[in-house]
Amino acid sequence: MIMEITSEIQVRFADLDAYGHVNNAVYLSYLEIARVELIHDLFLKDMERNIQYLLIKVNLDYHQPIVLSDKVFVHCWWAETGKVKFKAAYRLHDGKGKTFATGYTEHALFDGNKKRIMRMPEEWKAFASTPSDVD
Amino acid sequence: MIMEITSEIQVRFADLDAYGHVNNAVYLSYLEIARVELIHDLFLKDMERNIQYLLIKVNLDYHQPIVLSDKVFVHCWWAETGKVKFKAAYRLHDGKGKTFATGYTEHALFDGNKKRIMRMPEEWKAFASTPSDVD
Amino acid sequence: MIMEITSEIQVRFADLDAYGHVNNAVYLSYLEIARVELIHDLFLKDMERNIQYLLIKVNLDYHQPIVLSDKVFVHCWWAETGKVKFKAAYRLHDGKGKTFATGYTEHALFDGNKKRIMRMPEEWKAFASTPSDVD
Amino acid sequence: MIMEITSEIQVRFADLDAYGHVNNAVYLSYLEIARVELIHDLFLKDMERNIQYLLIKVNLDYHQPIVLSDKVFVHCWWAETGKVKFKAAYRLHDGKGKTFATGYTEHALFDGNKKRIMRMPEEWKAFASTPSDVD
Repeated sequence: MIMEITSEIQVRFADLDAYGHVNNAVYLSYLEIARVELIHDLFLKDMERNIQYLLIKVNLDYHQPIVLSDKVFVHCWWAETGKVKFKAAYRLHDGKGKTFATGYTEHALFDGNKKRIMRMPEEWKAFASTPSDVD
Repeated sequence: MIMEITSEIQVRFADLDAYGHVNNAVYLSYLEIARVELIHDLFLKDMERNIQYLLIKVNLDYHQPIVLSDKVFVHCWWAETGKVKFKAAYRLHDGKGKTFATGYTEHALFDGNKKRIMRMPEEWKAFASTPSDVD
Repeated sequence: MIMEITSEIQVRFADLDAYGHVNNAVYLSYLEIARVELIHDLFLKDMERNIQYLLIKVNLDYHQPIVLSDKVFVHCWWAETGKVKFKAAYRLHDGKGKTFATGYTEHALFDGNKKRIMRMPEEWKAFASTPSDVD
Repeated sequence: MIMEITSEIQVRFADLDAYGHVNNAVYLSYLEIARVELIHDLFLKDMERNIQYLLIKVNLDYHQPIVLSDKVFVHCWWAETGKVKFKAAYRLHDGKGKTFATGYTEHALFDGNKKRIMRMPEEWKAFASTPSDVD
């Protein structure tokens, strides 16, 4: 099963910092926008059931600053399903060949009712995918 | 009863926008820091009881931009308790006579269990205060 | 001349606070998104010329909390051009009759080269408009 | 030369997301607060000279969620000075033995006048340090 998405980001003036670039912390919000869109229905359903998708690791390389006039897309794909975590991978780009950042995040599921980390659902194994080449 | 507080704000590089000033939206977070500190125990206790302090109005005048090297204090005082709302007032300043902003916010209490706006607790009437002159 | 726009906002998970609502400060970023879109070319051209659009006042009424699943539009229109400030007005809504917030902001132009507030350009008088009824 | 610092973070209600935890993106702002404090004078001086400290990599492990009532400290130390980048390392903790996150960031210097990445200043070699054990 191919689990991937490309989300266009609405860059906000407030995302910029005093350098005139999108602040480094905001990139993680951009990843989150795409990731939440990728798993949207699961995410909302689990939020209602009090299951939280906790970020446990981020590894991100910043290649080019993003300025207000840039178009920004996040290509996000499900990279791996482990026993107690899953991994999502990302490429931020402008849709025309410029790459802003690449990286991945790892996540665990926290059962807010039982107050403990959950094992990954068996059916999630099928999510792991090699992304297509087309953004 | 005098209900007022002066909170010192930790200005973050990420609070700045491309103008090199603290972004206008961030001022509301500064108000919130002082307000939450003012009513800290009530606020946390009510959060646990699923009572939310909803902002219903903000009126803020921006006098001077804030830059990274500024010291920023928020003088916050409880201005009024009405039947279904309370009002907090603010002065943002540098501790040495420069005023960054002045204004007020109004809030209602939302009972998350009963899904409705609450009347103000009777004992909150006593909170209304005229602020002291000393910041 | 009709100066108005309706911008659709990309609501981010990070915009929410612990109440599960879009945090009150983030509303000002939503206003800014629409305002920057309304005056986009002027804004970018003036940014290059080191002319800054300073927010000097915000007055916003919050009617309904915004949650992650809401669609959010900002109807923004140029309300008034004064001697040294202009005023923009806003309605945040869901496109189906629910209003999240209404209000206005006032702005001055700061000439970063001469380090002083500017008079409003004469031709901006024409911007003032009564908004259409259609969002 | 020992280059390290421990900054106490002022956690804001707006830092929390709908899970009631500090949002993952905000951690990068916490790192930035400590990093800017560590190299404060250099940073401000270079900002005036139009030299920008660009983040080029972040690698962060999240161990424990941060809630509003947590005290948060960032222990930040200068880990390495390379030819064209420097590395800072971090531990976020509560001052009493609980670790919230650990990781590092890498940075390059961008000369905004010459529009190019700079070599690291020779004297920065001395900054590299093994942190002390005491937070």
